[in-house]
Amino acid sequence: MTATVHTLRPGREPSMQALMNLAAPGLNAVNQVILDRMQSPVALIPELAGHLIAGGGKRLRPMLTLGCASLLGYEGTRHFKLAAAVEFIHTATLLHDDVVDASGLRRGKATANALYGNPASVLVGDFLFSRAFELMVEDGSLRVLKILSRASAVIAEGEVAQLTAQRDVSTTEDRYLEIISAKTAALFAAACQIAGVVAERDETAETALASYGRFLGIAFQLVDDAIDYVSDAATMGKNAGDDFRDGKITLPVILAYARGNEEEREFWRRAMTGRANGEAELARAGDLLRSTNAVADTMARARHYGQRAIDVLAGFPKGPARDALTETVEFAIARAY
Amino acid sequence: MTATVHTLRPGREPSMQALMNLAAPGLNAVNQVILDRMQSPVALIPELAGHLIAGGGKRLRPMLTLGCASLLGYEGTRHFKLAAAVEFIHTATLLHDDVVDASGLRRGKATANALYGNPASVLVGDFLFSRAFELMVEDGSLRVLKILSRASAVIAEGEVAQLTAQRDVSTTEDRYLEIISAKTAALFAAACQIAGVVAERDETAETALASYGRFLGIAFQLVDDAIDYVSDAATMGKNAGDDFRDGKITLPVILAYARGNEEEREFWRRAMTGRANGEAELARAGDLLRSTNAVADTMARARHYGQRAIDVLAGFPKGPARDALTETVEFAIARAY
Repeated sequence: MTATVHTLRPGREPSMQALMNLAAPGLNAVNQVILDRMQSPVALIPELAGHLIAGGGKRLRPMLTLGCASLLGYEGTRHFKLAAAVEFIHTATLLHDDVVDASGLRRGKATANALYGNPASVLVGDFLFSRAFELMVEDGSLRVLKILSRASAVIAEGEVAQLTAQRDVSTTEDRYLEIISAKTAALFAAACQIAGVVAERDETAETALASYGRFLGIAFQLVDDAIDYVSDAATMGKNAGDDFRDGKITLPVILAYARGNEEEREFWRRAMTGRANGEAELARAGDLLRSTNAVADTMARARHYGQRAIDVLAGFPKGPARDALTETVEFAIARAY
Repeated sequence: MTATVHTLRPGREPSMQALMNLAAPGLNAVNQVILDRMQSPVALIPELAGHLIAGGGKRLRPMLTLGCASLLGYEGTRHFKLAAAVEFIHTATLLHDDVVDASGLRRGKATANALYGNPASVLVGDFLFSRAFELMVEDGSLRVLKILSRASAVIAEGEVAQLTAQRDVSTTEDRYLEIISAKTAALFAAACQIAGVVAERDETAETALASYGRFLGIAFQLVDDAIDYVSDAATMGKNAGDDFRDGKITLPVILAYARGNEEEREFWRRAMTGRANGEAELARAGDLLRSTNAVADTMARARHYGQRAIDVLAGFPKGPARDALTETVEFAIARAY
């Protein structure tokens, strides 16, 4: 095994419960901001936004902001608006992602674009994105604005890069890591870093929090990409094999392709370019991913980044916040596998 | 005639030349910022953005920022970055609009979504939007950030409202004015207002500049909506009758519907809901728009707002900047008609 994670409490399944308990009081305030500020005289906006925001979102990124603020002993209220801004940016990217991927299912529910159409999803995403910046302006920190405008640009770059790499089995692991660092981990990092800004810590602390978020985000995405090949709609809330059918090049495929013989590589090329990607091919893909240890090793990579996230936390004081942030990493890499 | 505009130079066609001359030195600097900051290691981003940004954009909004700064005697350089930010926001909305409308032609060229697909257009729009905020953060004015984040949210609200009103012939003129104030005039207003911020003028001056921009923007959109029924692809750079085919409810239709008899109203209902909107129906629409004076009166409304824009300028000192901004209004309402 390439990497192991030393769990806090051997013998019990890690969960999000510790972070949820830690964040609960703040999360109520954040949810209030979210509900207040997704309103608009244009009724379709709260209706569509509410479908995604009210409907089963885990609020993972706002909880990270709250958890990191707690880690720093911050006791103010500034981060409530900022955590809501982070969630709005996240929601905007989800709305646009579902249009980009033509997805029909997210978190086990019909996507907004499936229900309301692509035009409304694009425009409501734009609204939430703008509203996120309005919330940041109200807070008034140029440093937070810098962190989150940079993160937003990096996310968009990552999404375009992913689009460019789509269906290209020769995508390298490095390129893949760049893409998920941008499209997923950048917002995790920003969500954590801004806690350092509101708590008025120095740049070293900010950078450490950003690293924790970035490593957690990478681990999180690696596990998501592994799960796509080993789960089903009932447990993961989206259709298993979606990445396969969309020709999305994720680490399991990159590893299986790299380790495959010429016939297997030809299989992956045909599958990822959509020339042969039906149910029979999805089953064969599963076989190849197992025989090459591609999914297991994707999880091992996730544990590596998870361990790095946990090790960054060593620079912060022991206590319930650090424990909760640690267990969040453990949960991220133990999900549904 | 409901409204006339007293032209500066009777007997000669108004043009954009005065504003272009006034803005020329600054516009070079703005264009340099635009070209520098649309770059990304992800090659598709500058390629797609460049298609729209380099390709025939009039830079009207940046020129308004430059013209208003000149009106105030501002001689610094801060507004170059901010004018580029305004153009990025504008370009992002164009990219998303073309996806929303499924347009194939803009400014006489194939649209980005037609060439690169909807996913890339959505994501590059998001990138430019984020980059706009990065530019504002670099400038460091929270007031500018407030003005432009608010404008962005209002634009998105206007676009969603337009989507909601689509195909609904019972849309009122008031509602239509709200929509175009939001989707078009808000960014014109912001582009002008931020000149007041960089020149450190009081709120009265800022508000006056915003009003000039808003009235100009409304006039501009009214004329665009009139032109859609009286021009052709060669002169306007988009397909005439696009609004008709898309069931987009604009003032010409609102007036013709209000003034029509029951049979004519039924014609508009069928046409706008797409049940009968072929070439024959487009020809009949033209007849009805003429017989009800709907296009001519849309232009009269445009002149009303144009005159209001010009009258706002009376609060500023006479000189080449005021003349150029005045003639820009005259040009906007005299275009291709």
